[in-house]
Amino acid sequence: MDGKRKVSLPSKDIRNSLHIIKIGGNVIDNSENLYYFLKDFTALDGHKILVHGGGKVATQLSETMGIEPKLVDGRRITDIETLRIVTMVYGGLINKNIVAQLQRLGNNAIGLTGADGNFIRTKKRPVKTIDYGFVGDIDENSIDPQNIRKLLEAGFTPVFCAITHDGDGQLLNTNADTIASALAVSLAKLYETTLIYCFEKKGVLQDINDEDSLIRDIDPEKYEELKEQQIIHSGMLPKLDNAFTAINCGVKAVIIGQANELGQIKQKQAFGTRLSKKK
Amino acid sequence: MDGKRKVSLPSKDIRNSLHIIKIGGNVIDNSENLYYFLKDFTALDGHKILVHGGGKVATQLSETMGIEPKLVDGRRITDIETLRIVTMVYGGLINKNIVAQLQRLGNNAIGLTGADGNFIRTKKRPVKTIDYGFVGDIDENSIDPQNIRKLLEAGFTPVFCAITHDGDGQLLNTNADTIASALAVSLAKLYETTLIYCFEKKGVLQDINDEDSLIRDIDPEKYEELKEQQIIHSGMLPKLDNAFTAINCGVKAVIIGQANELGQIKQKQAFGTRLSKKK
Repeated sequence: MDGKRKVSLPSKDIRNSLHIIKIGGNVIDNSENLYYFLKDFTALDGHKILVHGGGKVATQLSETMGIEPKLVDGRRITDIETLRIVTMVYGGLINKNIVAQLQRLGNNAIGLTGADGNFIRTKKRPVKTIDYGFVGDIDENSIDPQNIRKLLEAGFTPVFCAITHDGDGQLLNTNADTIASALAVSLAKLYETTLIYCFEKKGVLQDINDEDSLIRDIDPEKYEELKEQQIIHSGMLPKLDNAFTAINCGVKAVIIGQANELGQIKQKQAFGTRLSKKK
Repeated sequence: MDGKRKVSLPSKDIRNSLHIIKIGGNVIDNSENLYYFLKDFTALDGHKILVHGGGKVATQLSETMGIEPKLVDGRRITDIETLRIVTMVYGGLINKNIVAQLQRLGNNAIGLTGADGNFIRTKKRPVKTIDYGFVGDIDENSIDPQNIRKLLEAGFTPVFCAITHDGDGQLLNTNADTIASALAVSLAKLYETTLIYCFEKKGVLQDINDEDSLIRDIDPEKYEELKEQQIIHSGMLPKLDNAFTAINCGVKAVIIGQANELGQIKQKQAFGTRLSKKK
């Protein structure tokens, strides 16, 4: 913006690359794991966005406050008390501690809900058979990539928690996996975007009980084969379906792996299971 | 940044003007008062920053969790449990609900602690006679105005809660009045800055029991007279001393008034007590 300042820019490839990484409770709940993950996250080249879910803290706080988790047909309901707790724990405690740790590592993080900057605007889930309460669903108009670009180009690293808003003053609880993939699909219009899901396993396994049975690469053809042979654990199928949807919408690759191995990307080594279009 | 887009800019005066407004518990604790305040805040011309303290909610949450407020010689101590609570309540619950309300009003708010974007970096208060715990003190290096300018110029309205960080991973509780005046002094280098403290009275009163005894304008000379005549309530003196320090550091004016009268600024009517240099 200031034409007088001379800035030495990194090569075009790095400026245009974006990693969006989602972490869950298994990383957040252990401060040592979290610190090493954030270090590896910071070391990645190019633009970065972190998306985090909750952890044990929200459950603990609910218990301390005597609020029972509400379940209907096994599905968690976000009543007004639960929304207050997740706003405090995800948007306050977890998000701001992650930001402070990233700042310590020299990463200019900025912690956000979807309400901030109107970055992620969702619709309260309509009541059909179940009233899920204050839960927001993402649609194709939820995210304006140009809006988030302003932060990235100003040198900030957005850190999103799993809370959005409806634009009419209501905060809404929103699935962190869905936030991550929606961000990836939206920002793939502007950046060469890789979406990384960190979870408890090393990646997609041939045998769920054998961490050495990691499948390194899956393209759509191989995915069909694996499904036909019923090799992939059924719990992984929705995640993989979503991943290939994101890839069909322009995301370069989706990687599913373990948070403590993220540093392998920087070292140009294989990390987790990489899902992408046929080479 | 995109030379092709044509933007019609407001007049230079408005682009260069900045209002920094601090609100406390008396506005936050009443959702109707808060909504009307946020509406008047949104209507102000030029750039805007909101700074908020806590409210009753933090005290209520502490009580629910069985955490007793710690006081030493009548001064509140921020132990680790209290820090967790203020991070949840100020940084999460209050901050994100204010942001959602501002978004509803069309104000592109972005909710922040001082850790976010490294906007406000403080030093943990050294232990002398009292250990205040996790409290951060602001110094002249705490705020880089160019860093906050990036958000303002990108069209965002920063909303700061009373939490900062030490740059080494530690969040710190910090006085909201001090945050507001430090932001004003820092940003006065770039913008024509007015600092507004909203509190429970209409402004500085000749007689603390008479809201009609409002003093409209005070310049340094008049301030000395008022002090000599012992007209100003002693509780106001530190606030006024700080205000004149800010003015001597380049802040255009400091206004002390009641949140529900903020709309008078927009209507070019007098609002509260205006402290400024001699005209």
